[in-house]
Amino acid sequence: MTSLATAQRALRDPSVRHPLWPPLTAGCPATSTDAVAYPLDIDYAYDRVPDDLFARPAAHGLERWAPLLPPLAAPGLGEGNTPLVPLGEDVWIKDESRNPTWSHKDRLNRVAVSAAVASGARGIVVSSSGNHGAAAAAYAARAGLPCAVFTSASAPPAVASHLRAYGATVLTVPGPAVRPLMRRIVDELGYQSVSSVTDSAHTGHPFGPEGYKTIAYEIALELGRAPAAVHLPTGYGELLFGVTKGFQELARLGVTGSVPRVYAAEPAAAGALTEAMRTGADTARVPVGPTAAYAIDCEISGYRGVVALRASGGTARTVTDAQMGAARAELAARGLWCEISSAAGLASLRAHGPREPEGPVVCVVTSSGYKDTATARESHGPMDLEWAEVKALLARRPTIPDSLVEGS
Amino acid sequence: MTSLATAQRALRDPSVRHPLWPPLTAGCPATSTDAVAYPLDIDYAYDRVPDDLFARPAAHGLERWAPLLPPLAAPGLGEGNTPLVPLGEDVWIKDESRNPTWSHKDRLNRVAVSAAVASGARGIVVSSSGNHGAAAAAYAARAGLPCAVFTSASAPPAVASHLRAYGATVLTVPGPAVRPLMRRIVDELGYQSVSSVTDSAHTGHPFGPEGYKTIAYEIALELGRAPAAVHLPTGYGELLFGVTKGFQELARLGVTGSVPRVYAAEPAAAGALTEAMRTGADTARVPVGPTAAYAIDCEISGYRGVVALRASGGTARTVTDAQMGAARAELAARGLWCEISSAAGLASLRAHGPREPEGPVVCVVTSSGYKDTATARESHGPMDLEWAEVKALLARRPTIPDSLVEGS
Repeated sequence: MTSLATAQRALRDPSVRHPLWPPLTAGCPATSTDAVAYPLDIDYAYDRVPDDLFARPAAHGLERWAPLLPPLAAPGLGEGNTPLVPLGEDVWIKDESRNPTWSHKDRLNRVAVSAAVASGARGIVVSSSGNHGAAAAAYAARAGLPCAVFTSASAPPAVASHLRAYGATVLTVPGPAVRPLMRRIVDELGYQSVSSVTDSAHTGHPFGPEGYKTIAYEIALELGRAPAAVHLPTGYGELLFGVTKGFQELARLGVTGSVPRVYAAEPAAAGALTEAMRTGADTARVPVGPTAAYAIDCEISGYRGVVALRASGGTARTVTDAQMGAARAELAARGLWCEISSAAGLASLRAHGPREPEGPVVCVVTSSGYKDTATARESHGPMDLEWAEVKALLARRPTIPDSLVEGS
Repeated sequence: MTSLATAQRALRDPSVRHPLWPPLTAGCPATSTDAVAYPLDIDYAYDRVPDDLFARPAAHGLERWAPLLPPLAAPGLGEGNTPLVPLGEDVWIKDESRNPTWSHKDRLNRVAVSAAVASGARGIVVSSSGNHGAAAAAYAARAGLPCAVFTSASAPPAVASHLRAYGATVLTVPGPAVRPLMRRIVDELGYQSVSSVTDSAHTGHPFGPEGYKTIAYEIALELGRAPAAVHLPTGYGELLFGVTKGFQELARLGVTGSVPRVYAAEPAAAGALTEAMRTGADTARVPVGPTAAYAIDCEISGYRGVVALRASGGTARTVTDAQMGAARAELAARGLWCEISSAAGLASLRAHGPREPEGPVVCVVTSSGYKDTATARESHGPMDLEWAEVKALLARRPTIPDSLVEGS
């Protein structure tokens, strides 16, 4: 199957279309303003989608969904096809830690690195302290492209090991220096950025979020219907946009009869999309306070988030570190250990509801507990226990560690 | 679909059968000797296996294979259904890091914890410094059972976080004290052990290795045939036994036309199974030297390993830390970051061959790079790079870090 992608389309005005190549990573040249570099997404020849596309089971590798994705020029790692694990009371966890680099970002990077390969980029550049950088580095390595990762000195130690493992060049510079250096790497060395290169708001790669559509496809296939609601950890809103677009496509193609309400869960320490929705703005900028949810503590929102929430009838809400910690502990007690930011979706459901009466609710868990800053910072104390002590320890039934409940 | 399991069967003499319940975790009472507590496996009513069992695609959750597994009384986490990732030249990587706790051990623990639940155990006890403990803790948590994990003070820091996350009681005691304490927990508190409780050799839980059969089922389904050879990291030989048994069952049921040669890859610092094969003994004990492959540095072998190698016509070979490090670097350069012990299978193929001319070769990668002892022990140095330095760094195309190549 080949891609049915036809054009890049301006999100701000879908009647404005650009050729599919090259990827417009700095936003739409026609609809952007001085204040906002508006992003694009990809349009398809929907009338040519094979009738049986959704009749076959899910499979590893985004090529399973090739007609509804941009061309997959970069080789894959068997990404996607993650399980939907029941949590009880018709709440389901889409466990994205089961991807090749153990986060949802593999879906985006299979597509974005493919765009870079197909458009002749000399390398990949990315700014990330965690999942996004690891996924970009893995797909760049598999494609044989060099990869530069700008990361923060405060990135978790295990993530630092992970970034380096794929042979990426890890660059640690002060925050304000990142984007100017990224742009020079793009302009002077011919790399393609899979992170946002604009300053005004989050613009991002036009192809990348298409990869997240496949989360919606897999959920619908597994449930045999669209869920009533989906709760998503939200940073720049690319996951939010992609999942929502996927559900919209399913309804448009007649695969499902409805589109779920999609809820964005942001850390209370930031919350730019919540602010944009509150004020009716296309994007917003907020101060960022301390939070353990470093994967989603973004000071600016992206226009994609607003578009997605308006389309699905959902909204954005914030959750505290304590609420995310409690949700993470709930998941761990059921055998699922996730990064604290990954628990934001469930935290938002538990804190704010609504528990939709009309059907299944899905919370997307984006990443593994191995990515947290607190992970690997404790150690086994030396202990030399006698039987009486062992018995006493087992008698007081252990609880989930405080560090897990409190966040961080 | 319900389980077709009929009995526990003595591996040393398959004509000796015991009822399916209770699980004989201390070995076969009829065939064991003073020197060796011989293990058991599970027999099934093979003549009643549904005709279409292998006609349907793989799916998450071992219930997919319920007829050929013991009863799955413990709830699952969507384990299994991991991808087969091409490495080139008809070599395939079965990526078991894509399981619920990011290792192959989830397959064993879904089955072993189910046996504990079905036989009324009051809790789960396990001895492990890594993957096995995390998986046991996760499945115990999901089943609502307490879990005691004996672990070593030298366990990697990230693994320590992982073990605690599920609420397990982590017990650190000197090595020789572990098994006596485990037996008291079993005898006096009514827990069931999912680790070996015998001193003479590795006996292990009779039900657990059945879970590994599903790796063989998935490989055969994906390739449309049995591979020519399979290379497996080998500690106590439970994975080796389970995968081999799965391929034997496929041939017996007429799903495949042959059984692959199965090769056990042990660290050169240990190599008990290699020693047992060399001397023709049922089990062997060897001194253990220093190695980064802590997941498979076992001083005793299990009779299961000898049984599996004799059945498949394969053999056991050892690989050095340098060879495992090189294999790990080869995988990372292709986008797959694994624990060093996980690269033992590929290391053995590269070091010893044979490259079977007659068909596909599968190397099972058991676990994620996050489990390594060296992981999370490096950090980002503070750096404040100018453009000229960034450009120079990118000009010397980075290589895989030395730590990855050298092992640990």
